[in-house]
Amino acid sequence: MSELSETLNRRGEAVTRRLDALLAPVKGPRGRVLDAMRYSALSGGKRLRPFLVMESARLFDVDPDHALHCAAAVEMIHCYSLIHDDLPAMDDSDLRRGRATVHKKFDEATAILAGDGLLTEAFAVLAGPRCHPDASIRAELIAGLAQAAGAAGMVGGQMIDIAPGRETLDLAGITTLQALKTGALITFSCEAGAILGRAGAAPRQALGAYARDLGLAFQIVDDLLDHESTPEELGKPTGQDEAAGKATFVGLLGVEGARAKAQDLVQQACAQLAIFAQKAKLLEETAQFVLERKT
Amino acid sequence: MSELSETLNRRGEAVTRRLDALLAPVKGPRGRVLDAMRYSALSGGKRLRPFLVMESARLFDVDPDHALHCAAAVEMIHCYSLIHDDLPAMDDSDLRRGRATVHKKFDEATAILAGDGLLTEAFAVLAGPRCHPDASIRAELIAGLAQAAGAAGMVGGQMIDIAPGRETLDLAGITTLQALKTGALITFSCEAGAILGRAGAAPRQALGAYARDLGLAFQIVDDLLDHESTPEELGKPTGQDEAAGKATFVGLLGVEGARAKAQDLVQQACAQLAIFAQKAKLLEETAQFVLERKT
Repeated sequence: MSELSETLNRRGEAVTRRLDALLAPVKGPRGRVLDAMRYSALSGGKRLRPFLVMESARLFDVDPDHALHCAAAVEMIHCYSLIHDDLPAMDDSDLRRGRATVHKKFDEATAILAGDGLLTEAFAVLAGPRCHPDASIRAELIAGLAQAAGAAGMVGGQMIDIAPGRETLDLAGITTLQALKTGALITFSCEAGAILGRAGAAPRQALGAYARDLGLAFQIVDDLLDHESTPEELGKPTGQDEAAGKATFVGLLGVEGARAKAQDLVQQACAQLAIFAQKAKLLEETAQFVLERKT
Repeated sequence: MSELSETLNRRGEAVTRRLDALLAPVKGPRGRVLDAMRYSALSGGKRLRPFLVMESARLFDVDPDHALHCAAAVEMIHCYSLIHDDLPAMDDSDLRRGRATVHKKFDEATAILAGDGLLTEAFAVLAGPRCHPDASIRAELIAGLAQAAGAAGMVGGQMIDIAPGRETLDLAGITTLQALKTGALITFSCEAGAILGRAGAAPRQALGAYARDLGLAFQIVDDLLDHESTPEELGKPTGQDEAAGKATFVGLLGVEGARAKAQDLVQQACAQLAIFAQKAKLLEETAQFVLERKT
């Protein structure tokens, strides 16, 4: 097993343990929403965003426990967004990570509340001293995460994704949509390491540029996988965007064009890491992993 | 017009202006979610929670602009909770503050996103330096608001309200439900003033006790109004809990019993304010207002 996959697995398990501790089950009728939050947050997944938080933090010798805590908050935001995006009123998906989506396993109202609960809890996690002893660092993380998650980020991206005119977006339109819907949280994940490490302007900018290229490459590969894989391989429905007549990177660039674009972006992303030299080796390999992943 | 109603009106208008500035409209397809957020946040209402933030802050001579900023964040949380509670999968309400609910005016997906957007933006507002120059104060506000809004507060209360067994809750069960669903944010509103003012333990405890009694009285009066008013008077559907066979304070205590309980709580709430003497006059009058309100 490569160093990257070993590190991905090890950190993924650490994030799951931290989420398990942060989202302790409770008895009584209120317990149902915690059960749904745990069902989503402890269901695995690649844990790519937490990995990016932790690996970016490592560049600046951040206390790994602080980075892990922040990584758990970022994963809560990711999970909330999946729960709400899967709802019948949104993408109406029954399958996620190979299991029933939260509204299928529980019900729609519980899924809405579980998403709300995870979104809220993410900010509670970042606000507490275990995240970082310096409150100004915590406030900067919260401001950054709220920006990435809100109407100027993920919420705005999802709005564009379901608003009238979605079918006929051009390449610039799709790129903006994805920069908000998936790019913003991937970018924040890398920025979080820099914030925790009180990094200077130059490394911050380099990491931000890496993350933006990586996020777009990630989404293009998502479109490719959606086009070429089966629901069994991906653990979620495939071809929904195409069936709905929505513009995608594959639709606009073709399979070969999309793959070439993703390759270019990954190369460009890795070039941004030059100032970190050997220390950024795993971030480089992560970009390659994003390109070659099969799920 | 009494000093209280004049102050309520003046501060309500200031909160609306601040929300208008914080939720600036944007062009393009993403603009739709901002429009829905503004439709909810700028639609009026009593602005009771923002008033409590500002009036509690005044006890400790907090900069009114800091209090107003924090008050706007609290109102965003209140509005988000109304949008999501009104959704078809939850209470399925078409009318709120005398107007179509967000999912009726826009659509269900936009309403889910508008709620998510307001919830997220509330934390962005508290994380920024305009809320308070000291980041440790901001982090304490965020931790408190997240606790009040999340699974241990409003989200947990709403879960109990829609979970199986809701119909047969006893008085203790209903009291817990309401302490989470509506009490937690009312209590945080008063605590926020104490946090902004770096208040000591005794005034904090007094304000907290006032807020808990006030919150419960507020909810009992809500049940009374729901029982006795028309939808035209309240600007929202009435009698839904009773029609659904849900236990309510009025159902368990009777009209006279519920009214007597609310009166007791308001008297007790006001007694908690003794240590603030004349400075808490408007908070005392607010408790009376909550008891006598007609909407």
